[in-house]
Amino acid sequence: MLTPPNPPAPRGPFVTFVGAGPGAAQHLTLGAYHALQGADLIIHDRLVGPEVLALIPVHIPRIDVGKEGFGKQAAQADINAALIAHASTGAHVARLKGGDTGIFGRLDEEISALEGAGIAYAIQPGLTAASVAAAAIGQSLTQRGRNAALRIVTGHDMAGFADQDWRGLAQRGEVAAIYMGKKSARFIQGRLMMQGAGADTPVTLVENVSRADQRIIACTLATFAANAAQLAGPAVILLGLAPRAATQHISHLQEAQA
Amino acid sequence: MLTPPNPPAPRGPFVTFVGAGPGAAQHLTLGAYHALQGADLIIHDRLVGPEVLALIPVHIPRIDVGKEGFGKQAAQADINAALIAHASTGAHVARLKGGDTGIFGRLDEEISALEGAGIAYAIQPGLTAASVAAAAIGQSLTQRGRNAALRIVTGHDMAGFADQDWRGLAQRGEVAAIYMGKKSARFIQGRLMMQGAGADTPVTLVENVSRADQRIIACTLATFAANAAQLAGPAVILLGLAPRAATQHISHLQEAQA
Repeated sequence: MLTPPNPPAPRGPFVTFVGAGPGAAQHLTLGAYHALQGADLIIHDRLVGPEVLALIPVHIPRIDVGKEGFGKQAAQADINAALIAHASTGAHVARLKGGDTGIFGRLDEEISALEGAGIAYAIQPGLTAASVAAAAIGQSLTQRGRNAALRIVTGHDMAGFADQDWRGLAQRGEVAAIYMGKKSARFIQGRLMMQGAGADTPVTLVENVSRADQRIIACTLATFAANAAQLAGPAVILLGLAPRAATQHISHLQEAQA
Repeated sequence: MLTPPNPPAPRGPFVTFVGAGPGAAQHLTLGAYHALQGADLIIHDRLVGPEVLALIPVHIPRIDVGKEGFGKQAAQADINAALIAHASTGAHVARLKGGDTGIFGRLDEEISALEGAGIAYAIQPGLTAASVAAAAIGQSLTQRGRNAALRIVTGHDMAGFADQDWRGLAQRGEVAAIYMGKKSARFIQGRLMMQGAGADTPVTLVENVSRADQRIIACTLATFAANAAQLAGPAVILLGLAPRAATQHISHLQEAQA
């Protein structure tokens, strides 16, 4: 039984942007769950996990707009038009996006379109892949004495490979979650090593975060591009983090050799 | 009715780290909600919102360990000892932390303690304040053509005011969420301006994120320290972001003057 208050959805043209989290239903928020149950129509990206889609009541129509993220040449204008057209009929539309609505999700562009059409909206943020991937490897994204800052960056932007602060990211102890970094893995590796990052810097790839086919690949900066080339699904690259068990294993080995 | 699978909690000594999100019950995940329902005992930080605490069944005992975050001199050793002592009785302990477990939550220190005691654990990540605060002001944390990277930083660390990459953060178009930055606001302001950040850089303070007493203060780098000094509750500082309505208002004003 669900005890939190579940306010009735406003009627009339309305869009709720809903962050689906990276995949597993358990990472959906209560608010996101309620928004899906109360929608008249759901417009979702391809990256929304099947477990989350399975929570949508069968009577609610859904439209797969196929967008996979920041940097891809999806027809954003078509998505905006679909949002406006469906909401304008008086429907309550849930716009379901993978991960968090506000991180590499083009939320602003869709909000601008709605504002232009005079359509009200609300936002239900979701868990971003970095948080869930870090939990999967038993690590935190910040750590006293190691890193007092976390960066969430994309490997790809509108212009192709994203220009990032490689010099800063190459510093020892830096932790970053790199999204959409599969295709640019060799570029990222090269930039970081050129800026002096150690070849043994830990890198963990988490593919299909929190899904049934989740895969964790622990490697180093020296080997990560080759490993990234093997990935089929979406992945987050955790720079500066090794899975907890592996960290301990390595530390035991070093003790044994000392 | 809740349709997602709700696997029975493992019995025997076990700790589930649960991210509570910043405050409102709607931002709790389904997995976190289930973890709380299935716990024998809940050990929580002071920053966990009352709405989330209200979801805990009344028969489950709870312990408030009072910790408020990264950098504070809380008795971490005492918290570790309490986790071990309670789990060792065979209880399933939920360790409930404000926000996300992996962001400024000292998760590693507690996991290390459990591993030392041979106690198994799981992690249910939660929504971090930055995501929810950005949603509250109608903005996304990344935006095509503006920022392809987001930083999550703390204003305070073990040594006092945290040393951050002020030069990088001072760049035009940078977006950062600064946690625990109230006391160090004047320091942060000074460092950023010394590194050339514009006095008119937008800054938004979101106090008591997603709670009934949430307050949004839109200001600029020039005025943010004075505004931060007025805050009573925990706040996240969104550097480089203005609330959406204000952004538009300013843009209209500029058009009017042109």
